[in-house]
Amino acid sequence: MQRWNNPNAVSFTAARARFLDGSDTPRDFLERCIATIEAREPALKAWVALDLPAARRAADAASARYRDHQPLSAVDGCPLAVKDIIGTADFPTQMNSPAFAGWHTRYDAAPVHAMRKGGAVVVGKTVTTEFAVGGPGPTTNAFDNDCTPGGSSSGSAAAVGAGMVPVAFGTQTQGSTIRPASYNGAVGFKPTLGALPLGGVHPLSHTLDHLGVIGATLDDVWCTASQTSLALGNAGQRFLTGAGALAPEPVKPRRMIHLHTKGWSEIDTHTREAFGSFLAALGEQGVKIINRSNDRRVAQLETKLDAWVDSGLDILAYEMRWPYEAYVDRHGTLIGERIRKLVQRAQSITPAQYERLLDDRAVMRAEVRSVAAGTDGFVTLAASSTAPRGLELTGSRTFLAYWSGLGFPTFSLPLLAVGEMPLGVQWMGLAHTDGKLAASANWCMQTLI
Amino acid sequence: MQRWNNPNAVSFTAARARFLDGSDTPRDFLERCIATIEAREPALKAWVALDLPAARRAADAASARYRDHQPLSAVDGCPLAVKDIIGTADFPTQMNSPAFAGWHTRYDAAPVHAMRKGGAVVVGKTVTTEFAVGGPGPTTNAFDNDCTPGGSSSGSAAAVGAGMVPVAFGTQTQGSTIRPASYNGAVGFKPTLGALPLGGVHPLSHTLDHLGVIGATLDDVWCTASQTSLALGNAGQRFLTGAGALAPEPVKPRRMIHLHTKGWSEIDTHTREAFGSFLAALGEQGVKIINRSNDRRVAQLETKLDAWVDSGLDILAYEMRWPYEAYVDRHGTLIGERIRKLVQRAQSITPAQYERLLDDRAVMRAEVRSVAAGTDGFVTLAASSTAPRGLELTGSRTFLAYWSGLGFPTFSLPLLAVGEMPLGVQWMGLAHTDGKLAASANWCMQTLI
Repeated sequence: MQRWNNPNAVSFTAARARFLDGSDTPRDFLERCIATIEAREPALKAWVALDLPAARRAADAASARYRDHQPLSAVDGCPLAVKDIIGTADFPTQMNSPAFAGWHTRYDAAPVHAMRKGGAVVVGKTVTTEFAVGGPGPTTNAFDNDCTPGGSSSGSAAAVGAGMVPVAFGTQTQGSTIRPASYNGAVGFKPTLGALPLGGVHPLSHTLDHLGVIGATLDDVWCTASQTSLALGNAGQRFLTGAGALAPEPVKPRRMIHLHTKGWSEIDTHTREAFGSFLAALGEQGVKIINRSNDRRVAQLETKLDAWVDSGLDILAYEMRWPYEAYVDRHGTLIGERIRKLVQRAQSITPAQYERLLDDRAVMRAEVRSVAAGTDGFVTLAASSTAPRGLELTGSRTFLAYWSGLGFPTFSLPLLAVGEMPLGVQWMGLAHTDGKLAASANWCMQTLI
Repeated sequence: MQRWNNPNAVSFTAARARFLDGSDTPRDFLERCIATIEAREPALKAWVALDLPAARRAADAASARYRDHQPLSAVDGCPLAVKDIIGTADFPTQMNSPAFAGWHTRYDAAPVHAMRKGGAVVVGKTVTTEFAVGGPGPTTNAFDNDCTPGGSSSGSAAAVGAGMVPVAFGTQTQGSTIRPASYNGAVGFKPTLGALPLGGVHPLSHTLDHLGVIGATLDDVWCTASQTSLALGNAGQRFLTGAGALAPEPVKPRRMIHLHTKGWSEIDTHTREAFGSFLAALGEQGVKIINRSNDRRVAQLETKLDAWVDSGLDILAYEMRWPYEAYVDRHGTLIGERIRKLVQRAQSITPAQYERLLDDRAVMRAEVRSVAAGTDGFVTLAASSTAPRGLELTGSRTFLAYWSGLGFPTFSLPLLAVGEMPLGVQWMGLAHTDGKLAASANWCMQTLI
């Protein structure tokens, strides 16, 4: 297996030990981030707003707390990028739409507030596709400026991939965290639906939207997700399982199901070989791989997931009706075509049909749980290829929409290199197994070299 | 039973028949509303923003549609007031807080959008207590300017009670729709949790907030609630049961449970007599009243509800942490004392305790369902008295917080007069029985004269 290695990656959790012994400080860490931002932003175009003076003040305050041996939390001093559909009191929230040019929420969204309470340093807002579902922004890929960074969390993933920040918030409704993380060689995490708070994040779809975390390492992702869950929680929901200052200790999985859904037809030979060598490496470590050829129920499940994935798009369209129908009524073609088409699709769905879509999803979740019994999770690609060339298309959702639509947790692990570009392995579990899934993901990251 | 009669009440559903035969128009209806607004607003102080030119344009458009016999919906042309914690694209949303002075959401909240799609005429924004939970606004009671209108939907209830509009949106987290409806002689409806959409409504508590509808008659309330549910739905939730253009046909209940929870100690003799005569009138019609003295399980349930109601306040406090902790961090004493105290209360609750609160509520819901088996619902007072004198306190939540906290549907029916002032009967059902509950409420309104 050809293991991807990101030479740019800046890990906050790795540096943090040195803050405590005085050999490094959050301010110095931030300055290294800023140097990278200044060097690479002209070509990367990851940011829509930066406030470096405010970031320096926040980093200085964190530095003082470490000097006094009183950090606020495991993320104290951690530079953070925030996708521009996530509300921030100090920056505009513009969602890559002219309808929201110059808009201010007057509040920090719940995840931003949770991170600030822990002492994190909000560096700025990153480029999103239009409302996280429409047309692309100007951001380029961290490893090839002629390639897409993926979307919709384009700027967040590119900024982490380029080493501008150790962690960034994205969101995911279909594939918007896992895909750009894969394309930019970062760790991506989309938790169990509801495990991380979404208050103050501009909505796409109430039962499909998730906060996503993109980071340089699994530890960076996990400490950020943990702070975000435990500092605040998500009203009415269970907290993130396995929360802690670092990723859970590695645990070797015994049995993983390899999902071979319809996206496999899109895959080229090099990608197929890279993923094949990953599966072989898992096998060499004694992990049993269950798939369509050795378990008939897996083949049946793949067929059902492939058939179900369009229902997820109907749920998305229906739930987007508010506020997007209102935006289209008010702003017309100022709202992008994909969004206008989704609103039209919503208008053809009746309340009774929508209630049936919710019921069908509950059945699909039960099917997946049934097949998963006795295993440690599921594995497939995080994207059907490395980042495609060009900036107009942000890539395929084929491998992403079904797991995301079920609300189950998933990681993109930057394990594979195809040509010179990174490609993620998608590592997936059942609802509320996030902590256990992070432990086996950690085992992969530490073992499969 | 001394039946309350509101001489001010303006019913849209009653007028609508005449729009179709040409003997009245939405514009003329609106002008009558505007005349009342102009006459009474100086003393009532129900509004924070009005846009009468825009309302007249919308009413004219509705008038043209009726003339062409093509109304958009059962609410086409209906004047509507909107509580000022509900986002509106055309008005500021200021929430009675200096922290939000001049703020614009740039979107209509989901319920406002749903009503506009049906042709409703948004007249303006009405006074709320601070963020719907803090200090009172300037609004006075529709029947005595020296008395409170109740809160937090103060302006919405006073405007309906005074006949300025036929319907208004409020919200309810503990008692904020039912109590002011009771004090202002209006019909109040707090639906099953999630049956009406809350997108774009500034949050207090995710699992306790409800959209509320206050109207001149049950038909006005029901056609508004129905349009709001069916035009859009509430992402991930079931729709309002029994939705329609008018309230469901009257159905006589057979067995109702009278809840005699601890608020009864607050009640004066006149109020007790008024409610007693209502129960007697129900009995005369052949409705069996089940209570603590003829069913031991009712007494046990009352004890449990009384003990549980403080848990509801813990849930409220915990879920308010976002965004109110951030507001307190940022604005300090610009945020009112009650809110600051609730945030402090939240900070003493651990994630594990919060998860237990959610579990306890599920148990409490099951207890209520068990006792309710074989009955048609529950009945008690909508408030412990008519509107108290003075504007500083918006009244007791004693009779309201438990049913609201469980997320079960409830009406305030303006059936009682105590002295010269109105008092509501609270008419309560189980989750998703809203339509059935409206049918028995309609029977009360039509039968108990």
